[in-house]
Amino acid sequence: MSTLIFGHKNPDTDSVCAAIALADLKKKLGEDVAPVVQGQLNPESKFVLDKFGVTAPEVVTSYAGKQVYLVDHSDLAQSPDDLGEAHILGIVDHHKLGDVTTGHPLECWIWPVGCSCTVLTNMYKFFNVEVPREIAGIMLCAILSDTVIFKSATCTDEDRKACEQLAEIAGISDMQELGIEMFKVKSAVEGTPVRELVERDYKDFNMSGKGVGIGQLELVDLSIVDPVKEDLEKDIAKLKEEKGHHSVFLLLTDIMKEGSEILIASDDDSVVEKAFGAKPSNGRAWLDGVMSRKKQVVPNFEKAFGA
Amino acid sequence: MSTLIFGHKNPDTDSVCAAIALADLKKKLGEDVAPVVQGQLNPESKFVLDKFGVTAPEVVTSYAGKQVYLVDHSDLAQSPDDLGEAHILGIVDHHKLGDVTTGHPLECWIWPVGCSCTVLTNMYKFFNVEVPREIAGIMLCAILSDTVIFKSATCTDEDRKACEQLAEIAGISDMQELGIEMFKVKSAVEGTPVRELVERDYKDFNMSGKGVGIGQLELVDLSIVDPVKEDLEKDIAKLKEEKGHHSVFLLLTDIMKEGSEILIASDDDSVVEKAFGAKPSNGRAWLDGVMSRKKQVVPNFEKAFGA
Repeated sequence: MSTLIFGHKNPDTDSVCAAIALADLKKKLGEDVAPVVQGQLNPESKFVLDKFGVTAPEVVTSYAGKQVYLVDHSDLAQSPDDLGEAHILGIVDHHKLGDVTTGHPLECWIWPVGCSCTVLTNMYKFFNVEVPREIAGIMLCAILSDTVIFKSATCTDEDRKACEQLAEIAGISDMQELGIEMFKVKSAVEGTPVRELVERDYKDFNMSGKGVGIGQLELVDLSIVDPVKEDLEKDIAKLKEEKGHHSVFLLLTDIMKEGSEILIASDDDSVVEKAFGAKPSNGRAWLDGVMSRKKQVVPNFEKAFGA
Repeated sequence: MSTLIFGHKNPDTDSVCAAIALADLKKKLGEDVAPVVQGQLNPESKFVLDKFGVTAPEVVTSYAGKQVYLVDHSDLAQSPDDLGEAHILGIVDHHKLGDVTTGHPLECWIWPVGCSCTVLTNMYKFFNVEVPREIAGIMLCAILSDTVIFKSATCTDEDRKACEQLAEIAGISDMQELGIEMFKVKSAVEGTPVRELVERDYKDFNMSGKGVGIGQLELVDLSIVDPVKEDLEKDIAKLKEEKGHHSVFLLLTDIMKEGSEILIASDDDSVVEKAFGAKPSNGRAWLDGVMSRKKQVVPNFEKAFGA
């Protein structure tokens, strides 16, 4: 029975590509492994695998009695529900150290970089295994996705270095162009129900006792959502009522202009000005330079709600 | 302010030497770090540092507000009490994944091998940094200690490979001889209070509702403890009463003969026969091939007490 390698729930491109890459590397080191995913691929990941001719991993949701490697997470909440009945052989990740524990020694490669595939690139190097052309292509895409084409605050020199090596192997002469092509797929909104767009990357928070929801859409150009912007505004107002929240915000992040328009449904619009110094007009505001929910938006709102 | 690097509480030789080696490597990679220990060195560790002319790290017990690297553990119980107020930059280890978590990305090198210094040897290689002669010497000793000169069930090919590389750098032609020299120091009992010997490496367990204590002394020759064996037997009987335990066992492990004499203070001697098939005589039994408490003794007793 093969050892299964998988990323977190609601798989993103790094989760999928890191599982495929680790499976390739481990096979070449003599282990019987297979990459899998915990759920359906998103449009960006499908595009990436198609582009380089890589087969999508099978969806597997139960892992009891299996040997496993985790990639791109070490939090129980993001792991399979029956992880406790699996035998964890190792973890490859680039996040904080979560609450996964083991009863036996294991192999962990966890680095403070922008993407799990950057760690994987270095593991290939360490074990002196050549990265196949198509695997290099999808790993490159994963790093471009996680670092928002090197613009994210989480991007490190190691990520840039890995991309240069992978681009050469994959025969990609223009990483910028590849990144934008990928983000255009990620940006596509046509034919997608409005609620699905609002919840595509949405998280709830408790800020000083008030319920706050924050969604984000990363777009190559804000104009993409012009046709649906009013519907998005109506829907976040509806979501706010459904949740009984103080506020629901939707960040429309322009990855080329490097800033976000924030759509506001709130009992008190002034928290946006308190948080970012930008005065909202008609429930919208432009936040220049703001791209990261984790590193910029949440901390600023935490302070504004606490004040 | 330097980043502090430390191993677990009650430091053993791997904990001390891995901290010193990681500090050397990180300094050469441009970080401002210092190795420290959470408590006094044991005689074996002192001998190892003296032999290769390496200064003993300072004892530090409070880490609030400090940046830190952990070596040789990832369990909160083995970490400083105020670890929660420190900022963890990374972990180098070879044990199970414990309950230490972080709120931020970090660097983890955790391998399923016999010793943290084996992981460190590979990190030097990865970063293309030469291991200094004296650091190679103490790392070699740490691996020989943790793997009981390659005899432990926890020893892997990676450990053997690392030792060969380190022995060459340190100019050690006979690893066996070095290992025995070190274990002779570890074996020394003269002048040590009996209770200190019983508790030198002692752990309590709950086995099917019964209290069970198991201590272990690793010796180059069983005859070393001949002069104190009766005192040891009296003391484990006393410890059993003090703890209200069903049994207290002391393993006198002969690392050359590769087996253990077990001293028994128990309400029911027959558990030893149930567990190992060896009939005790006068509260003693020879367990051939039994060297590891973790991998051999505890599992067998768990079964015997459960039956």
